[in-house]
Amino acid sequence: MELTKQVSVVFLFTLFLFHVVLVLGERSSYIVHMDKSFMPKAFASHNHWYSFTINSLKSVSSKSLDHHHKPLGIVYTYDNAFHGFSAMLSNDELEALKRSPGFVSAYSDRNVTLDTTHTFEFLSLNPITGLWPASDYGRDVIVGVIDTGVWPESQSFKDDGLTEVPARWKGTNGVRAANPNITLSMNSGRDTEGHGTHTSSTVVGNYVEGASFFGYASGTARGVAPRARVAMYKVIWEEGRYASDVLAGMDQAVVDGVDVISISMGFDETPLYQDPIAIASFGAMEKGVLVSSSAGNERAIGTLHNGIPWVLTVAAGSIDRFFAGSLTLGNGLTITGWTMFPVAALVTDLPLIYNKTVSSCNSSEALSTVGYGIVICENGFVDNQMYEISKSNAPAAIFISDDPETFEFSDFICPGVVITPKDAQIVIDYATKSLRPIASITFQQTLLGTKPAPVVASYTSRGPAPSYPGILKPDIMAPGSLVLASWIPNTGTASIGANLALTSDFVAVSGTSMACPHASGIAALLKGAHPEWSPAAIRSAMITTANPLDNTQNYIRDSFFNYEIATPLAMGAGHVDPNRALNPGLIYDATPQDYVNLLCSMNFTRNQIATITRSSYNCSSPSSDLNYPSFIALYTNKTKGVTVKRFQRTVTNVGDDATSYKVQVAAPSGSVVNVYPTTLVFGKKYDKQSYSLTIQYDSNNNEEITFGSITWVDKNGKHKVRSPIVVSPMIPVW
Amino acid sequence: MELTKQVSVVFLFTLFLFHVVLVLGERSSYIVHMDKSFMPKAFASHNHWYSFTINSLKSVSSKSLDHHHKPLGIVYTYDNAFHGFSAMLSNDELEALKRSPGFVSAYSDRNVTLDTTHTFEFLSLNPITGLWPASDYGRDVIVGVIDTGVWPESQSFKDDGLTEVPARWKGTNGVRAANPNITLSMNSGRDTEGHGTHTSSTVVGNYVEGASFFGYASGTARGVAPRARVAMYKVIWEEGRYASDVLAGMDQAVVDGVDVISISMGFDETPLYQDPIAIASFGAMEKGVLVSSSAGNERAIGTLHNGIPWVLTVAAGSIDRFFAGSLTLGNGLTITGWTMFPVAALVTDLPLIYNKTVSSCNSSEALSTVGYGIVICENGFVDNQMYEISKSNAPAAIFISDDPETFEFSDFICPGVVITPKDAQIVIDYATKSLRPIASITFQQTLLGTKPAPVVASYTSRGPAPSYPGILKPDIMAPGSLVLASWIPNTGTASIGANLALTSDFVAVSGTSMACPHASGIAALLKGAHPEWSPAAIRSAMITTANPLDNTQNYIRDSFFNYEIATPLAMGAGHVDPNRALNPGLIYDATPQDYVNLLCSMNFTRNQIATITRSSYNCSSPSSDLNYPSFIALYTNKTKGVTVKRFQRTVTNVGDDATSYKVQVAAPSGSVVNVYPTTLVFGKKYDKQSYSLTIQYDSNNNEEITFGSITWVDKNGKHKVRSPIVVSPMIPVW
Repeated sequence: MELTKQVSVVFLFTLFLFHVVLVLGERSSYIVHMDKSFMPKAFASHNHWYSFTINSLKSVSSKSLDHHHKPLGIVYTYDNAFHGFSAMLSNDELEALKRSPGFVSAYSDRNVTLDTTHTFEFLSLNPITGLWPASDYGRDVIVGVIDTGVWPESQSFKDDGLTEVPARWKGTNGVRAANPNITLSMNSGRDTEGHGTHTSSTVVGNYVEGASFFGYASGTARGVAPRARVAMYKVIWEEGRYASDVLAGMDQAVVDGVDVISISMGFDETPLYQDPIAIASFGAMEKGVLVSSSAGNERAIGTLHNGIPWVLTVAAGSIDRFFAGSLTLGNGLTITGWTMFPVAALVTDLPLIYNKTVSSCNSSEALSTVGYGIVICENGFVDNQMYEISKSNAPAAIFISDDPETFEFSDFICPGVVITPKDAQIVIDYATKSLRPIASITFQQTLLGTKPAPVVASYTSRGPAPSYPGILKPDIMAPGSLVLASWIPNTGTASIGANLALTSDFVAVSGTSMACPHASGIAALLKGAHPEWSPAAIRSAMITTANPLDNTQNYIRDSFFNYEIATPLAMGAGHVDPNRALNPGLIYDATPQDYVNLLCSMNFTRNQIATITRSSYNCSSPSSDLNYPSFIALYTNKTKGVTVKRFQRTVTNVGDDATSYKVQVAAPSGSVVNVYPTTLVFGKKYDKQSYSLTIQYDSNNNEEITFGSITWVDKNGKHKVRSPIVVSPMIPVW
Repeated sequence: MELTKQVSVVFLFTLFLFHVVLVLGERSSYIVHMDKSFMPKAFASHNHWYSFTINSLKSVSSKSLDHHHKPLGIVYTYDNAFHGFSAMLSNDELEALKRSPGFVSAYSDRNVTLDTTHTFEFLSLNPITGLWPASDYGRDVIVGVIDTGVWPESQSFKDDGLTEVPARWKGTNGVRAANPNITLSMNSGRDTEGHGTHTSSTVVGNYVEGASFFGYASGTARGVAPRARVAMYKVIWEEGRYASDVLAGMDQAVVDGVDVISISMGFDETPLYQDPIAIASFGAMEKGVLVSSSAGNERAIGTLHNGIPWVLTVAAGSIDRFFAGSLTLGNGLTITGWTMFPVAALVTDLPLIYNKTVSSCNSSEALSTVGYGIVICENGFVDNQMYEISKSNAPAAIFISDDPETFEFSDFICPGVVITPKDAQIVIDYATKSLRPIASITFQQTLLGTKPAPVVASYTSRGPAPSYPGILKPDIMAPGSLVLASWIPNTGTASIGANLALTSDFVAVSGTSMACPHASGIAALLKGAHPEWSPAAIRSAMITTANPLDNTQNYIRDSFFNYEIATPLAMGAGHVDPNRALNPGLIYDATPQDYVNLLCSMNFTRNQIATITRSSYNCSSPSSDLNYPSFIALYTNKTKGVTVKRFQRTVTNVGDDATSYKVQVAAPSGSVVNVYPTTLVFGKKYDKQSYSLTIQYDSNNNEEITFGSITWVDKNGKHKVRSPIVVSPMIPVW
C-alpha cells in the first residue's frame, strides 16, 4: 500500500474474478472461521493449512459438481481480525468442511448496505485552541477507510502540508509496485460510486479552496483531521457488496497498522457472530485500533446496525447551514426559501402567477398556457411539481412545504424556491391583490448559523441495537446532513430538467455515512493527542463530553419524531464535541477480556463466541455489565412491577493529578437512580475509582422511552463527565 | 469622490433628469465651447458667466417655445478639458447663442458606442522582474475609467493590499458625503450594464481566487495594475449614451487628479473638433494625463475611432487560451473541441448518432426521432443547430466549424463541442463504421499556451483613422478576445436552452473595450515606474517595444484577413510588451504645442481648432510632421508617380548614460526608405538626437497596403526601438 499520497488504495485484486464466478456456479460464498490451535505443526503457515483443508473437500466436489465447475479455491485468508478464510462452497462441500479439524463456524457471504443518502457540517474545531492544535491536525495518524475506493486525483487528496509516510506503516507500497504486471482498470482502488471519496475526504481531506456544490456551501473544504493519512480499502464493487470483501479490507487495515478504522456501512439483520464488522472490529480492538461505524439510515426504533459493543456507533444530525434562494416580491418584501437549483438562473422581475386552475402544477401542458412567469405551486408532491415545471415553459416556480429536509434528498431540477405555508400565504396575498405582481429569485446562497442546530436527522437509525440491546447505542451524533465533501467527477450529482445531468467535484449529501467519518476524524485527532489511549478510552471521551444541547441551548430535538426532544436511542450522549473530548477528565476503559466477559454473558454457543474472539478466550467471568459510559435498562410486557437494574463502573482519572468528583443525577421520568458513592476522590492521574448505579424502573404500558443522565463534576467544575441513561421497551433482536 | 475603496464612483447626478427632459421637449442637447478670455471681469466664475449667457437667451425662448417648456438650464459646465457647457437648446436659442460674446462652437450631443462584444488575456507580467515590481504593481497610480459605472461589491474591488488614498487626490469623498440628502437608486454610479465593471476590473481588479466564467478560464483573477486605484466616472446610462456625459466625466477626472484615463468607447463619424474624447483628452494631455482608448469593433479598413493624435489607440488581439470540451470516442480516440457550455453536463458513453436525414440539425422534431444520443450536426449555422438541439431530446451534439472565434460571440446553449471539419471526418468515420458507436464529452476545460497567439481579432477596427489619417493608428494591440473580468451579477451572461439564462460574477467577453484597459493598466504601471514621463513618452515606450511576432516567432496574423500577416493598420506596432516598455531606450516625446502645430496644419477653422485647444494657442508653426514613433504615407489615385514623404524625428535617450544607436530598416515592399543619420550618439541620459526619414513610394493600382519598420538598436543590442511604417491608400475622412 502506498502512502506517498495522502490516500492509499488497497487493491483487492482477486475480487473481480470472484464475483464473476459467483454468478456462474452453483457454489456460493462463505466466510469460514477456524481455530488456529488445531493447525498441525506440519503446515508452514495458516495459508497452507486452509488450502489443505479446502483441497480435502475435492472428493465431495467431484461427486456433487460437474467437471465444468472451476476448482475449489480460497478467495481470502484472514489472520488478524480473526482466523479463517472465505471460499466458494457448495452445500456438500460446506457440510464436509464442518467436519474438518479446527472448523469453528461458517456463514454465507452477504450484501452490505451503504449508509448514504444526501448533507452538511459544523464542528468547532479551530487552529487556536483544542483538539486541532493539540493533535497537530492529526498529523501522521493513519485512518483506514473501508469503503468504495477513492478518486485519487481529487484535490482533497493532494499532498501539500504532509510529511513523509510514518515508518510504522506496514502497508505495501502501491498496487503497481506489488503487482507490476497487473492491468488496472476499474478493477483498481478507484471509486466508481463516490461514497468512499466522500467519506475519506471527510476524514482527512486536505484544504481545497473554492469548493462548493454548484455554488452552495462554498468555501474552503477540509477534512476533520486534515494532516492525518487515509488508507482506503476498497471493498465495495459495482458487481456487488459482500461481507467477505469487508472482512478482507478490515483485516488488511489492521495488518497495515492503521490507528482508526472508519466504516460507513453495516450489515442489517445479522447477529454479532455473523457480522463481519463485529468480527473484524474485535480483532482491531484487541490491537488497539478504534473502529468508528455508522448507525444506518433506517429511521425506526430498533433498526440500528453496527450496534457492536467494541465499536463506536455514530448517528447523524443536521448542521447550522441552509441553502437559500431569496424570493423578492415587487413590493420589496424578501422571503428566504430553500433551493438547491444548481445554477444561478436569471429570474428577475418576472410576472408572479397564482392561478388556481394550474396551481397544483401537475400538468406541464396546462402550465404552459398561463403566460410567462414565476408559478406558485401548491397542494402536490414537490418532486412531481418540479418535473412538470421543468417540462413547461415556466421560467421558475415557488413550492410550498413545511419540511425542507425532504429536499435534501431530491434533485432540485427547475429554478425555484421552497417556502413555508406561512410565507406562502404572504406571497399568494401579494399575487392576488396586486395589479401586476412580479417577483425575483436569486440562487446559490448559503446561510450559516441557522437555529436550532443540530437536530437529529430523520433518517438516522435508532437504537436499541437489535444485535445486542444491552449496550446503549448509538454512542454519539455527528454532522451527517448535507455534508460537503469530494465526489467522483464522472457521475451525475444534480440535474436541470429531466434530460441534463451535471457532474461536480464536491457534493453535499446526507446520511450516517457522512456522520461516521466526522467521528472517525475526531477519533484520529484524539489518538494523535493521546497515543496511549485504548479504543474504549477514546470512545468514552467522545461519549462523556458530547453535547445534549443545540445552539439555542435547549435539548436537541428529533426531526423524525415531530421535533420532540431527542432520546439517547436517536443520538446517544449527544452531539460530538471534539474540543471537550480532548480533556474529558475521567474515562471508562475496557479491555479485550471485558468484551469477552460480555460475549460470554450472551446466549451464544461456544463456536459463535469463538467466531468473534477466536480460540483463545476465557469464559470464566461472564458479565453483561460492561464498563460502558452509558446505561440502558430494558423492559418487556412480562417484566411487570418494579425492576431494579444494577451497574458497576470504574472510571480512570485522565485529568488533574489529584481531584475529586461529585455526581449529579437526572433520573428518567418514572425511574429512581441511585449512585454510590456520590463522591469519587483521586489521589493522582490514572487513579481508578468505582461506583455502582441502580435504576428502579417499571414497565410502561405506553411503551414509552424515558431518559436521563448522570454527570460526574469535578471540584473546579472544569470537567463534566456525562453518561446518558435510557429506559426503553425491549425490541426484537437479530 | 471616494477612494477608500479601490474603485470610486463619480456620481453625475443631474444626468438622469436631463435625459428625461430630452424626451419631453423640442429642445435638444448641445455642447458649447466658449473662449474664457471673453468673460467679463464682473462675473465671479465661469459658471456665472455661462448662466448669464443662457439666461440672455430667454427672450428667444419665450417667442419660440410654449410656456409648458421647462426653463433653460445648463446641464454641465466644463472648465478643465475645455471651457464651456452643455445645455438644452432650441434651434432659435442655438442661433442666438452663436451671436453671444465668447462663443467658440457648439455641436449636438451624440450617442457613444461601447466597444464590447465577447473574450481572453495573456501578458507576461510577473512578480520577479519587469514592470510589476518596478512599479510596485502600480501602487497609488490613479486611473480614471470613463464607462458605465461599477458594481462596487465585486470581489475585484475589495481593498485588501491597498494603502491610504493618495493625498494628491482631489476628488470629493463620495456621493453621499457630497450630497447627503440625495436619494441613490439606479441614478448612482452603479453599473447596470457590466461593461464598466469589466473594464475597471481589467485595469486594477484586486486578486480574486476561484474566478471563472462558468468553469472556463478558472483561476485567480486580477487586473493589470492590481495595486493602482480606479476612479469610475459613470457616463453611460440606461436612458442613453451622450457625448455631454462623456465630456463631463473626463473633465472631472482631470480635476480630480487621475494619472491615466481609460475610455473603452468612441464616437464614430465624428471630426476631431466635435469628438468629445478628442476635445477632453487634449486638456488631459496638457495636464500630463495619458488617455488610453479603444479602436472600435467595426472590422473594416478605415473604420477606426479614437484615431486622435494625442491619445493611445488600442486594437484587440486573441490570447493563448482555448475553452475546450474533450470528445472521447468509444475506440479511445480523444478529440479536443471548442465549447463554452456553462455547466458540467454528464455526457458519458452515449450512442453517437450520425444520421444523414437529421444531420443538418434544423428540426428539433426530426432530431427527437433518431434515438437518444450525441448527434453529429453538419452543413448549417451552428447557432441555429444549437437552438434546435436544445429544443430536442438530444442530450448533446457535435458541431463542425473551422473558426472557433465565431463562437466567442455566441451563447453555447446545449451540451456539445465544435470540432474542425478534419476532426469531423474522423468522428463520422467512426460513427458509420462501428457497430455500436459511443462517445463521451467532458466540459469546462481550459487549454493554455495555444498557438499561434496573439492573432489580430477579426472585430478590431482598422486604420487609417478617418478622423485624421496622417498619424498611423491604432498604436498597439492588447488582449481583447474572451478576457475574463468581473461583471454585474444581475444580467444573463450565458444560457442553457432557450429559456434558462444564467448569471455570473465573472465573464469572458471580447472587444477592443477589453483591450483598452489592458493598455491603460500598463500605462498606469509605466507612470508608477516613471512618474516624470509625459503621456507621449509613455505611449512611445509602449509603441516602440511592442512585439510584431506571435508565440511561434512568426509575424502576427490577422483573423479577419484570412490569417495573412497583420498590417500596422490592424495592430499598430504590435502586441504590447509591458516589461520591455519599462525600459525602451529611446522615446519620441511631444509637447502640447507640438499637437497645436499639428492641428494648425489640418484643414480646420480657427474655431474648430479652438474647440480642441481653447483660446490660448499659437498657430505660427503649423506642421503635420508630429514627433510620433510611427510612420504612415498615404496615396490616392491622383498621386500618380513616385511620391516622397519626409519625416523629421527627435528621440530622447532614457536608457544608459552614454550610448549610440544604429538604424535597421525594413522598407515596405515597393518603397525605398532612407534614414539620416544612421547612427545616433548620446553623451548622457536625456540627450536628444534627431534624424530624418524619407519614404519613396508609388500609388498602387491594387490599393495594396504595404508595411515595414525601422529599428534603432543600441550598441549592446539591449534596446531595440522599433517604429512601424505603412504605405496605404487614402480613405474617406470624417
